[in-house]
Amino acid sequence: MKIVVDTNGSDFGVESVINGAIKAYEKEKYFISFVGEKDKIEKIIDFRLPKYDYEIINSTEIINNNDEPVRAIRKKKNSSMVVAFNTLNLEGYDGLISQGSTGAILACSMFITGRLNGVKRASIVANVPTRERKTIIIDPGANIDTKPEMLMDFARMGSIYCKTVFNVKNPRIGLLNIGIEEHKGNQLARDTFAMLTKSNLNFIGNIEARDILTDKVEVIVTDGFSGNIAIKSIEGTAILLLSEIKKSILSSKISKIGAFLIKDKLKELLSIYNLDKANAAPVLGIKKPVFKCHGSSDSEGFAYAVGNLLDYIKKDVTKKLEGEFE
Amino acid sequence: MKIVVDTNGSDFGVESVINGAIKAYEKEKYFISFVGEKDKIEKIIDFRLPKYDYEIINSTEIINNNDEPVRAIRKKKNSSMVVAFNTLNLEGYDGLISQGSTGAILACSMFITGRLNGVKRASIVANVPTRERKTIIIDPGANIDTKPEMLMDFARMGSIYCKTVFNVKNPRIGLLNIGIEEHKGNQLARDTFAMLTKSNLNFIGNIEARDILTDKVEVIVTDGFSGNIAIKSIEGTAILLLSEIKKSILSSKISKIGAFLIKDKLKELLSIYNLDKANAAPVLGIKKPVFKCHGSSDSEGFAYAVGNLLDYIKKDVTKKLEGEFE
Repeated sequence: MKIVVDTNGSDFGVESVINGAIKAYEKEKYFISFVGEKDKIEKIIDFRLPKYDYEIINSTEIINNNDEPVRAIRKKKNSSMVVAFNTLNLEGYDGLISQGSTGAILACSMFITGRLNGVKRASIVANVPTRERKTIIIDPGANIDTKPEMLMDFARMGSIYCKTVFNVKNPRIGLLNIGIEEHKGNQLARDTFAMLTKSNLNFIGNIEARDILTDKVEVIVTDGFSGNIAIKSIEGTAILLLSEIKKSILSSKISKIGAFLIKDKLKELLSIYNLDKANAAPVLGIKKPVFKCHGSSDSEGFAYAVGNLLDYIKKDVTKKLEGEFE
Repeated sequence: MKIVVDTNGSDFGVESVINGAIKAYEKEKYFISFVGEKDKIEKIIDFRLPKYDYEIINSTEIINNNDEPVRAIRKKKNSSMVVAFNTLNLEGYDGLISQGSTGAILACSMFITGRLNGVKRASIVANVPTRERKTIIIDPGANIDTKPEMLMDFARMGSIYCKTVFNVKNPRIGLLNIGIEEHKGNQLARDTFAMLTKSNLNFIGNIEARDILTDKVEVIVTDGFSGNIAIKSIEGTAILLLSEIKKSILSSKISKIGAFLIKDKLKELLSIYNLDKANAAPVLGIKKPVFKCHGSSDSEGFAYAVGNLLDYIKKDVTKKLEGEFE
């Protein structure tokens, strides 16, 4: 497999991205097409990869989080992200991964890679850190002002995704809402509820935000505004609570001993709900596989994301989505 | 002070409401006007209150969570909630508290008590369980399809509330959004941002959901849909994480000893972030003080809520709001 790697966008710098790509390579061989500052990349690789298993495509600009996405991809033609997406369009390239701005990745996905026929709006998926690890939220922040038809696309794409990637036979779809009753919610939620009820999807009704982490459904459908609020509320609460617990139990001698005794159990628990590992997500509804990895992921997290991308390509999710929307 | 108590709506039954009201009375004397099934109430009180400090107003119907609020208050004229709100309208009554349906309480507040002059939309407030306990979210689920003008009212009312009840000099206002930059968010968020910037409120900009619990602002302004998603995501995550931690550390002998040693520290922490105590909230923007207490609060929680209502009346928040909107 031939994977395009945008070397910019990580909070830990270009080195972290390249090290992550190499870590993934050591686990499972693939051809890496690095895009970025050529000399710098060559230096960082430092002969750790065989010549025939990588290439470097030079770029001179960087798109960052402050750039307005659509304008940026028009103006910064020589940015690593735009060059990477143009490379993906060439024959023989199987997928792309970037830690860059979500908005810019989505814009490139729409305007350079292109939507699948019949898809009204592409979207990013976020994995939700539940115990089963088979729940996704779509959309977690990509499409902000949406219509019911777009949410229908999200539901269909999410269903195919869970079927193919998690091997769930008939994924349960829930609509994120402020109550379980049919009449609850804003206009968008009420209209989407009616459309989902009429569809042939396994729609089980509204799901309240307090049930996002409870494995009640596989696909949580929502607009990007509400999805983002939900995901970030969960993240914020988990981070705050865990750090408060740590601070609290390390504040006395006796509880420090207690902390030592429960250490292993807590570690086990944290690995189940590991947020880092949930940080890789595909753009669904476009013609080729594209993965977004959080800017805050380190090289370990990036390697994990590359693994997910390779799996996604092997399972040929894009083709399955194409079939559904034709 | 003369307080109207709707005796229906608690998950623990009428007994819990009455016991809660009496618990509050034992802490601070006030006149209680119980509304509900007269004989039953008299029996539960069982001579625990002096005759001159309470009355019972009989009602024969109950509004429940399945009732459509506006229709219910029209049809069930003899429900405890409608009778209670009509009683509050009489001279000499200072406040009302109910554990009933939020929608019905809001409908009664609008149509029986009436909005203050100049207020476009009344709203409920939710206290956010932060360390400082001085942060509120408005609206946490009352008004679903909203306009920027309504969110402006929420900001102004929330500011007065924090000033008066929490003694915060110049409450910081944050707009709940999916990024901190001005151009972020849906149409409603962008329009509200522009209006807040022009106002004389202490608007500090957008606040992301992951910062809700961090004491960065006192007033978090949002529509009822997003507010509800945020509050319930936080609640769900906190409940899940704490129960998983408990399960996990009680699953081995060694970690059980550890759990015993950290018990006190964890209890201390839980009392700081006690969600039960955050469960009482006023309806802002109406002519008389009305408090909503969660249906899931026990008698202890209800007593705490009554205490908050008495404090709210003493601080004369209603008059201060009236002054702001005149």
